[in-house]
Amino acid sequence: MSRAKAEPMFCLGENTLPVSMSLFATNRKRLCNALRENESVPKGAVVVLQGGSEIGQDATDVDLVFRQESFFQWCFGVTEADCYGIIEVDTGKATLFMPKFSDEYIVWMGEIHSLGHFKAKYAVDDTKYTTDIAEALKEMKPSKLLTLSGLNTDSGKMTKEACFDGISSFVVENTTLHKEMSELRVIKTPQELDVMRYVNRVSSEAHKELMRRIRPGWLEYQAESVFKHHVYLHGGCRHVAYTCVGASGENSAVLHYGHAGAPKDEKIEDGDMCLFDMGGEYYCYASDITCSFPVNGKFTEDQKKIYEAVLKASLAVHKALRPGVSWVDMHKLADRIQLQELAKIGVIHGSVDEMMEAGLGYLFMPHGLGHLLGHDVHDVGGYSECSPERPKEIALKNLRTARVMQPGIVLTIEPGIYFNWATIERSFSNPQWARFLNRDVLQRFRHFGGVRIEDNVAITDDGIENLTCVPRTVSEIEAHMEEGRKRYENASDLGSLVPAKGT
Amino acid sequence: MSRAKAEPMFCLGENTLPVSMSLFATNRKRLCNALRENESVPKGAVVVLQGGSEIGQDATDVDLVFRQESFFQWCFGVTEADCYGIIEVDTGKATLFMPKFSDEYIVWMGEIHSLGHFKAKYAVDDTKYTTDIAEALKEMKPSKLLTLSGLNTDSGKMTKEACFDGISSFVVENTTLHKEMSELRVIKTPQELDVMRYVNRVSSEAHKELMRRIRPGWLEYQAESVFKHHVYLHGGCRHVAYTCVGASGENSAVLHYGHAGAPKDEKIEDGDMCLFDMGGEYYCYASDITCSFPVNGKFTEDQKKIYEAVLKASLAVHKALRPGVSWVDMHKLADRIQLQELAKIGVIHGSVDEMMEAGLGYLFMPHGLGHLLGHDVHDVGGYSECSPERPKEIALKNLRTARVMQPGIVLTIEPGIYFNWATIERSFSNPQWARFLNRDVLQRFRHFGGVRIEDNVAITDDGIENLTCVPRTVSEIEAHMEEGRKRYENASDLGSLVPAKGT
Repeated sequence: MSRAKAEPMFCLGENTLPVSMSLFATNRKRLCNALRENESVPKGAVVVLQGGSEIGQDATDVDLVFRQESFFQWCFGVTEADCYGIIEVDTGKATLFMPKFSDEYIVWMGEIHSLGHFKAKYAVDDTKYTTDIAEALKEMKPSKLLTLSGLNTDSGKMTKEACFDGISSFVVENTTLHKEMSELRVIKTPQELDVMRYVNRVSSEAHKELMRRIRPGWLEYQAESVFKHHVYLHGGCRHVAYTCVGASGENSAVLHYGHAGAPKDEKIEDGDMCLFDMGGEYYCYASDITCSFPVNGKFTEDQKKIYEAVLKASLAVHKALRPGVSWVDMHKLADRIQLQELAKIGVIHGSVDEMMEAGLGYLFMPHGLGHLLGHDVHDVGGYSECSPERPKEIALKNLRTARVMQPGIVLTIEPGIYFNWATIERSFSNPQWARFLNRDVLQRFRHFGGVRIEDNVAITDDGIENLTCVPRTVSEIEAHMEEGRKRYENASDLGSLVPAKGT
Repeated sequence: MSRAKAEPMFCLGENTLPVSMSLFATNRKRLCNALRENESVPKGAVVVLQGGSEIGQDATDVDLVFRQESFFQWCFGVTEADCYGIIEVDTGKATLFMPKFSDEYIVWMGEIHSLGHFKAKYAVDDTKYTTDIAEALKEMKPSKLLTLSGLNTDSGKMTKEACFDGISSFVVENTTLHKEMSELRVIKTPQELDVMRYVNRVSSEAHKELMRRIRPGWLEYQAESVFKHHVYLHGGCRHVAYTCVGASGENSAVLHYGHAGAPKDEKIEDGDMCLFDMGGEYYCYASDITCSFPVNGKFTEDQKKIYEAVLKASLAVHKALRPGVSWVDMHKLADRIQLQELAKIGVIHGSVDEMMEAGLGYLFMPHGLGHLLGHDVHDVGGYSECSPERPKEIALKNLRTARVMQPGIVLTIEPGIYFNWATIERSFSNPQWARFLNRDVLQRFRHFGGVRIEDNVAITDDGIENLTCVPRTVSEIEAHMEEGRKRYENASDLGSLVPAKGT
């Protein structure tokens, strides 16, 4: 039931990316370096992290497929639940503590691996059982235990601090670690970038395949099914990085459409725009890609105008983004271009400077231009003691970071224009905004929905690397979907999604 | 963004089963009838249930796709999180309490529906906001609130009892409801049976499609991907009922293989047996089907022998099962047949009566013959005050119920024979069992893995209805897989799982 691997790495078969355990050794080394430079950390300090636990469905015995907690993953890359990990800051020595199982485990869950197995699997210096953590720490005589406690600025939730029987006999300090680890997680190493390239490639291919196959008459959730199948089957992505947004028509103006209360059960009608915001996750590295296109493969004039307005904003950001640039300025750049283009289309009128002043961009793009990406789809470090504060202006308040760019940052660029009719109607009675709105023209877009174009990019020394590769211009999209129509010409009905031949 | 539906029902598109809200009205009516007959319940009692909440991934803002808590689902069929529901026992009047959202909700999650919308959607007597529950209950002047508190005998966890600001001003009784609801959930109504037939049909079709497509060289998890895609795409099953078990070779002796520590990353080799235990879930109704077959579509002599031993046990249970029969006796029947067949094969020798006495069946089938099935894959009511106690004998202790059969019970029949080498080796030094074992013959099965055959059946007035429809005999399986090989003859490599044509 076990299989010897040549060197310690994670891999889900030949068709997937092998990830060396040295990725995590590098992260631990970076962490120790940072902590040694931190004046508040004395000699003899030991980092203590608690891994994630399985989540059950209410009181039933159904456990959801375990996914490791992200801070623990960043340090150790461990796929098992209920572990602890410690790192001695002075030496970098890492020890993993694994749960001990009863004999029944063999029958239900499989081979009970030795501590040596896990030591080799994760390339750590030592492995022990979780029941021995207090004893093991005592022997080290640590000056301090550093535990993880901090606020996730996207969820408003606190991380779960490590806890074990006997921790009260140690000096515990819980403020330093979260700050240091979050800062480090913002900057991706070359090895991490390789994994993010991989999961982006897999997810890009899945979007492309979906665009080839989709037809009017599909239900929205069927697109989610095709996407998830593709990233798992071909890329080993057992999880997606977040709930798939698969919207058509006016639903695509709802940013997180697809939750259980809106289960994507609408039929996608000929003439509808689609907005698919879906990303696979590989070994806890996320991708987050949005494609917007007409389901029938041909843009109408209005669809083309709105789409190209968003694309113009996207390309401008791609061009301007580099180290030293503020993300707030990038948001403003995209906002300004979209407002200029909306004015050209005739949806709004007046001085774009005044629109910017009034925060009109928020009406059409109520989210930030993008966010950090890594283990989490909204990755940590957006706001911290070391970064600029969250802006207060309406058009900027939803930005998930206000950072100045540095090489190694990975983030999404995702401008969008949405016609959310409930909010547009409300704004007719908001004098700050109503003066810019051309109600008659807006009526034409009442059922349009929205367009978002979302790429994942890494900041390089002098610009960006785009990790995402999907058709982006109107002509690229139309050609790609035309090719798909030809490739799957007998597949216009859903029944034939079960391949009749050649599969 | 909303859509008028002709009558209150749940449906995920034309290709899926519409489920009328009267299913839940019937359940509530059954509950009120039972409570009115219960002497401990006074006039004026009111049932108070709290629905499930979304589950987040650690401290991040990623929420897992919400799935309703099963007791709440049974009463109300509500797809939204964070609700309450109350039922006045004397009148049966049902009121749903829905969360109230801020204006931001429109932008991120979609239209904010009115209370009237939910009243119509779920066909209840009244709807209010959750913030008003204490006030609404006060006006009813209830003699008692009945809340849900009880042990899940499969997980060992307690249900989450309803709680809200102000509950301390009421008389609350939490012992009756769990017992009554669990008993009622054991017996499925005709409407519930329709949904269970549907989800079983969808899942059967997915198993059949997988058997047509699978080839040596696949990775185990790719089979999970094909299954999940099929039940979602064609059947609207966004969730599966439990973590898919997709094992090949000796992994198939591990009952819950496929968890995060054993992520189904082995290549399925030519000559391997496969064991796929996978079931879709539709509107919180579970299916739970296992198919065992050789990946190359042709049984070897040994594979055929073991498979047919299990099948013989399965068919005997199918034939014997009817109202009045004890599930414990069914387990013993299957156990006895499997031991007889293993003796014929030569794996064991001696008196089958003595083997039964010694609990030898446990060595080859360490799980119970089957379990109740409904909203939960291991459905509630297995053991209760009203049912026989859990047997203590080793071969019976893992039975999830010891009930005597009644019409309307739905359960799995899942005999199996496994060669879990770690436990077999240990038993060589167990004198109770070693005397029956033919070590030399057993060696031949060291890497065999296991076979399980699992159907879902409903107890009828005079026998059973098999809800599962997949190829079961050796010749049916070989013919089905041969047909699949022909249908997808160009699909022997994984790459072509992206259909080249005709899809």
